[in-house]
Amino acid sequence: MTQEKQAFGRIELAPEGHLQLPSPGRRRALKWLFAGGAALGGTATAQALDVPVWSKTLGKPVGADPYGRPSPFEADTVRRISPGLTTTEHSSVAFTPLQNLFGIITPNGLHFERNHAGRPDIDPHQHRLMINGLVRQPKIYSMDDLLRLPSVSRIHFIECGANTAMEWGNVAVPTVQYTHGMLSCAEWTGVLLSTLLDDVGFDRKRARFILAEGADGASLTRTVPIEMALDDVLVAYGQNGEMLRPEQGYPLRLVVPGVQGVSSVKWLRRIEVGDQPWHTREETLHYSDLMPDGMSRQFTWIQECKSVITSPSGGQRLLDRGRYPITGLAWSGRGRIRRVDVSVDGGRNWRIAELQEPILPKALTRFRLDWHWTGEPALLQSRAVDETGYVQPKIRQLREVRGTRSIYHNNAIQTWQVDAQGRVHNVQV
Amino acid sequence: MTQEKQAFGRIELAPEGHLQLPSPGRRRALKWLFAGGAALGGTATAQALDVPVWSKTLGKPVGADPYGRPSPFEADTVRRISPGLTTTEHSSVAFTPLQNLFGIITPNGLHFERNHAGRPDIDPHQHRLMINGLVRQPKIYSMDDLLRLPSVSRIHFIECGANTAMEWGNVAVPTVQYTHGMLSCAEWTGVLLSTLLDDVGFDRKRARFILAEGADGASLTRTVPIEMALDDVLVAYGQNGEMLRPEQGYPLRLVVPGVQGVSSVKWLRRIEVGDQPWHTREETLHYSDLMPDGMSRQFTWIQECKSVITSPSGGQRLLDRGRYPITGLAWSGRGRIRRVDVSVDGGRNWRIAELQEPILPKALTRFRLDWHWTGEPALLQSRAVDETGYVQPKIRQLREVRGTRSIYHNNAIQTWQVDAQGRVHNVQV
Repeated sequence: MTQEKQAFGRIELAPEGHLQLPSPGRRRALKWLFAGGAALGGTATAQALDVPVWSKTLGKPVGADPYGRPSPFEADTVRRISPGLTTTEHSSVAFTPLQNLFGIITPNGLHFERNHAGRPDIDPHQHRLMINGLVRQPKIYSMDDLLRLPSVSRIHFIECGANTAMEWGNVAVPTVQYTHGMLSCAEWTGVLLSTLLDDVGFDRKRARFILAEGADGASLTRTVPIEMALDDVLVAYGQNGEMLRPEQGYPLRLVVPGVQGVSSVKWLRRIEVGDQPWHTREETLHYSDLMPDGMSRQFTWIQECKSVITSPSGGQRLLDRGRYPITGLAWSGRGRIRRVDVSVDGGRNWRIAELQEPILPKALTRFRLDWHWTGEPALLQSRAVDETGYVQPKIRQLREVRGTRSIYHNNAIQTWQVDAQGRVHNVQV
Repeated sequence: MTQEKQAFGRIELAPEGHLQLPSPGRRRALKWLFAGGAALGGTATAQALDVPVWSKTLGKPVGADPYGRPSPFEADTVRRISPGLTTTEHSSVAFTPLQNLFGIITPNGLHFERNHAGRPDIDPHQHRLMINGLVRQPKIYSMDDLLRLPSVSRIHFIECGANTAMEWGNVAVPTVQYTHGMLSCAEWTGVLLSTLLDDVGFDRKRARFILAEGADGASLTRTVPIEMALDDVLVAYGQNGEMLRPEQGYPLRLVVPGVQGVSSVKWLRRIEVGDQPWHTREETLHYSDLMPDGMSRQFTWIQECKSVITSPSGGQRLLDRGRYPITGLAWSGRGRIRRVDVSVDGGRNWRIAELQEPILPKALTRFRLDWHWTGEPALLQSRAVDETGYVQPKIRQLREVRGTRSIYHNNAIQTWQVDAQGRVHNVQV
């Protein structure tokens, strides 16, 4: 997909999400005429008796698609590059269409993609992982070696540190795909990094950090503290049951649960054990937080507690008054979500949303609240609280400390404005 | 995929699973030369310093695939029709490649497919669900109506009642894909059927059963007891985050957790409430259990507790002595898995396997056990126990009651024989 890049001053309304029902085209509104179902009688009965062609014919043969694809009617549910981004096509991001998704698992075809030198296609038979540095015995592992070691499977979110970046400067992109779509969640399978560090006999006295290095053209490198490395960091080869997708690091990636996505180094080829941070390009020039005084915070590991309403959300439209489900996602890099509050009046009143179980640590949690839209303008917000008691902040609170020139780590409460025509807009209050 | 059907007398070895690492071709063995990693030095170092082309070039542009696909190196990980089946191409089954999968989530592209009249391609804007029978107000729901109702997301397995059918008669198909591959697990999202039955005002005094009817050419119909319908049955539109796949009933299916797959009617178009079973074709002629005395058990709802080792499994080969992970899946239609035992000597001695959390009711549970292969022949078995205390039976125990002419509901312990050459075979002991 090549796509004209635009500066943010002249952003166009992106292909918006639909409220929920998929549409093959670019539909700007959803017709929900018979919410609760139509009573049987008259035209409704006639319609029910009109047997469609697919009930009278044979369908496609079984196994026609040995590896299946979505329905053609779902062609609108795809990753997209924000028309507002001024990135190059090899160092950019394709956002997950959160407005169209259910539950907490992101299907592999829609996991957000963020590359620094394009997506390599790696031959797993040639791929190797080297572990060196402060270790008793440096080693090189083939994929077969790694697949033979004890493994674990864990459901974790990955969120780019730059997710919701544009909102720092009050520039509002139109849809939740672009405000929050650098966020996905999968069941990852692999070897605990601690297993491998034990295998090479890392120096327990001197080891303070590890460096993870990718095999892509960018040789992306990131420093990870040894406490995290020994806790729940995975050297992962599996994603939602199958091998990693190419754009997720096939055949091997790091997964650093709860930490900004760039640390979950893709196409992982090397891990070095050291006694101090490496201060690489992607942890100095980028992925550091510019503060109001012009200084930068260099290492912001954890993705703090955050949530967003995915429906109704920006670009969608409510066509009639009545019952609407409010639903969205909450997550915290520090553990489990404890509570999500929802407001429809810009934060004056809050109601507690229902949380879908299982509520897993460092994983997405789906929340839901029923809502009756009266036709009046509304300001929809969600506010998450994690198990540490941390409360998701307002954008004003974040700006008081961090200013408006940051790119990374914006976990502010998101506001969606429903106007009297039912149109949903991204606003800041 | 059209494929020559063969009778079981002249079955060929199917394209076998590989132990774990994917291969583009039909590989009969896995080379695991450096298990645990190769110490650095000599050729290993030279290999590490040989920088591959993908580390020196730009990869594919970001967003090149708005909806992603697996790596071309994964072309072997696909659904397959068993060469032993004598079914027609529109009423057959494509099996999930369990030998290649990790964790508990089945990726949507690999969920097993079982159709009775092929797979219809349904326009969701035209699709309707009618609920009639013993109700105060029959109704017709559009997809938009349903998407506006309160929803839930649940992780559940679906297993065809005919899974492991061929093993009743001591006919051993070669791989776990064919012995157990009518089994998948996903996060399903939809409306609880109880919500809809409340909405139409079902007759609480007289309602004993519901009938679910599909919109496919087979108009597949199944009876479900009202207690199940009011418990955890879902009218589902979501599968692992996205809309259902076409072969899983797009845009709407029933999900009857813990019950044989045929009851989870796909392309769902009608639910009727009644006071007795309908005794339809697919619950009389088929999906009934033929007993030794020639009589049939008609309604066997629940998929009893079952497990299988997915690696090492039939068709794979261990190339060298040493450490191997034994891993597999356990599940029960009655709730959670409590324990899985693993034997490497045909059931004389058992060890308790590690269970991967979260352990969810009526969902797959991944188990693992480390094993050191000495080079001697071995008989690998797993035996699951669910939270009711039910213990997965031996095939001999099942045959004592049910004979050998059944098709459905074989939940016996599976045995994989490892011979002295490391080849893994399907055997019955």
